[in-house]
Amino acid sequence: MKWCGDHLQLLDQRKLPVQQQYFLCYQVADVIDAIKLMVVRGAPAIGITAAYGAVLAAKQHDTAELLNTLDSLAQARPTAVNLHWAVKRMKKRVIHHQEGQLDECLLAEANEIFQQEIVANQQMAAYGAELIAQSNAPCNILTHCNTGRLATGGSGTALGVICRAYQQGLISQLFVDETRPWLQGSRLTCWELQQADIPFQLNVDGAAAHLIKTEKVSWVIVGADRITANGDVANKIGTYSLAVLARYHQAKLMVVAPLSTCDLSMASGSDIPLEHREATELCYLAERQLAPDNVAVNNPVFDITPAELVDFIVTERGIVANPTAEKLKNLFEACAV
Amino acid sequence: MKWCGDHLQLLDQRKLPVQQQYFLCYQVADVIDAIKLMVVRGAPAIGITAAYGAVLAAKQHDTAELLNTLDSLAQARPTAVNLHWAVKRMKKRVIHHQEGQLDECLLAEANEIFQQEIVANQQMAAYGAELIAQSNAPCNILTHCNTGRLATGGSGTALGVICRAYQQGLISQLFVDETRPWLQGSRLTCWELQQADIPFQLNVDGAAAHLIKTEKVSWVIVGADRITANGDVANKIGTYSLAVLARYHQAKLMVVAPLSTCDLSMASGSDIPLEHREATELCYLAERQLAPDNVAVNNPVFDITPAELVDFIVTERGIVANPTAEKLKNLFEACAV
Repeated sequence: MKWCGDHLQLLDQRKLPVQQQYFLCYQVADVIDAIKLMVVRGAPAIGITAAYGAVLAAKQHDTAELLNTLDSLAQARPTAVNLHWAVKRMKKRVIHHQEGQLDECLLAEANEIFQQEIVANQQMAAYGAELIAQSNAPCNILTHCNTGRLATGGSGTALGVICRAYQQGLISQLFVDETRPWLQGSRLTCWELQQADIPFQLNVDGAAAHLIKTEKVSWVIVGADRITANGDVANKIGTYSLAVLARYHQAKLMVVAPLSTCDLSMASGSDIPLEHREATELCYLAERQLAPDNVAVNNPVFDITPAELVDFIVTERGIVANPTAEKLKNLFEACAV
Repeated sequence: MKWCGDHLQLLDQRKLPVQQQYFLCYQVADVIDAIKLMVVRGAPAIGITAAYGAVLAAKQHDTAELLNTLDSLAQARPTAVNLHWAVKRMKKRVIHHQEGQLDECLLAEANEIFQQEIVANQQMAAYGAELIAQSNAPCNILTHCNTGRLATGGSGTALGVICRAYQQGLISQLFVDETRPWLQGSRLTCWELQQADIPFQLNVDGAAAHLIKTEKVSWVIVGADRITANGDVANKIGTYSLAVLARYHQAKLMVVAPLSTCDLSMASGSDIPLEHREATELCYLAERQLAPDNVAVNNPVFDITPAELVDFIVTERGIVANPTAEKLKNLFEACAV
């Protein structure tokens, strides 16, 4: 992700790992498309992208229209709260704008959001790796979806922790769920791990239970799309399954997410809008038909893991073990966010 | 699956649901290929196919060579015991053969195996549907892999129970796991359910936990590839995951399998050879590349569900609740198998 003066350049995640192709956004409509079509995905990365989208919108629209456009931008995808969080931050800047060029002010704000996420990733990596170091390391770890550079703009959330832990010699074996339907694991996480020269094995999502049991996986490490006030976690479909499996096998579930992913305005996970995506994600792969015509598909792309199955939430401002509403509230108050 | 006088005709399951193409076996080598390459799959169907393979072998070879060839046939795939069971039955016929044409005797035996599986399927369907009727029906059911006509030659094991239960008005909603990596669910089960005019929804394997919880699934119904003396069950990768999830959510796990799937010679599931298949099953879909080059893949295609997570084993000779070695032994003795 790169701001290029008059446009935003995104590595098109739909084309990876086969092609490295860029998608250029010259208008806010391009940014909305990029988010909807999953050119860019991953909660923090969507937030940063939206922030730059606001800069483009400011170049196109007057203030009233700009605020409306930002509302549309915030609606591009429903589940990850970082999108709303980033747009809200940008709107605040618009509303309180007094002097100087508005688009330049917004660009400064977008750059700050980007920089803060990069720093947050580094802090989370350190906290998460420390948790692993304190456990029975070196150990076996399983991860789901993609939570690296592509998803965050920085070194990653869950994958940032994993990379740091690998550098510190804390990982024996790393298992990567392919993560259907969009295959973020096989397409994106494998690609990022290869670039970082970190060994791993790719598995189908259905094999996770078997691997957790037979390979004695100690940690399941994932990101998050929204964490509610009570510590419930919305994340990529399959995360709830892993949470139950981890608990059953006495593995620990570590959720790695910046404070921008926490939504204290929502009491619990049941309030989170869970996106359902189209049937074609299951029925086709590129031009290849995988299921008969006219099949009814149930395609929720996120699920909710209740707080009681979460062992640790790792944020840039510290670790919350066995999260509760009170602990999360205390963390936010301590940070004065 | 159809015996055509001098060859065996198999509906090529690799091509479904897009093409209905037949694979013709004129020699036992064709049958071995068909089993290895998954032209035909599903434990009972592999057993029947192998029985007809023995007929073809008897036309090609003298007795000594025939027995060797049957040993090769039995090795075509390791996990499903029906293959070994059927070949053993055919070998017994060869060894005890006295009068008449050997190939005709073997054809009679193969036809008998086929007929017995068809009848067994009907009996299992009745027993399984009765179990559902006794529960809080109509209810929501989830199934995994393909266990219908394509997998069994008859009406199916788990899918036979599901079809019968549907006819009896016992099903509210039916969820079908797509079943990576080979997509037996989306490719085969969806196709069979459409032909039977039974409504269902297709989901990714990772969504099963979310659906079991939010849609209050009462039954997870699956087939089996081998059941050991203590009631442990080898089945398609992902079954163990479902077993843990079912127990966690107070859903019941029903394993539907004929006695030919039971292997009392093995004490427990840890003795079962679990097939690992090639990396390409995860890394490619037809010509489409899904993961970067040179990715290490862990692709076990079966897993073991321990007996303590199995609520019911449904056979053609009755139901075993909370299976134990003693209960399974008693069932076999009562049947004098």
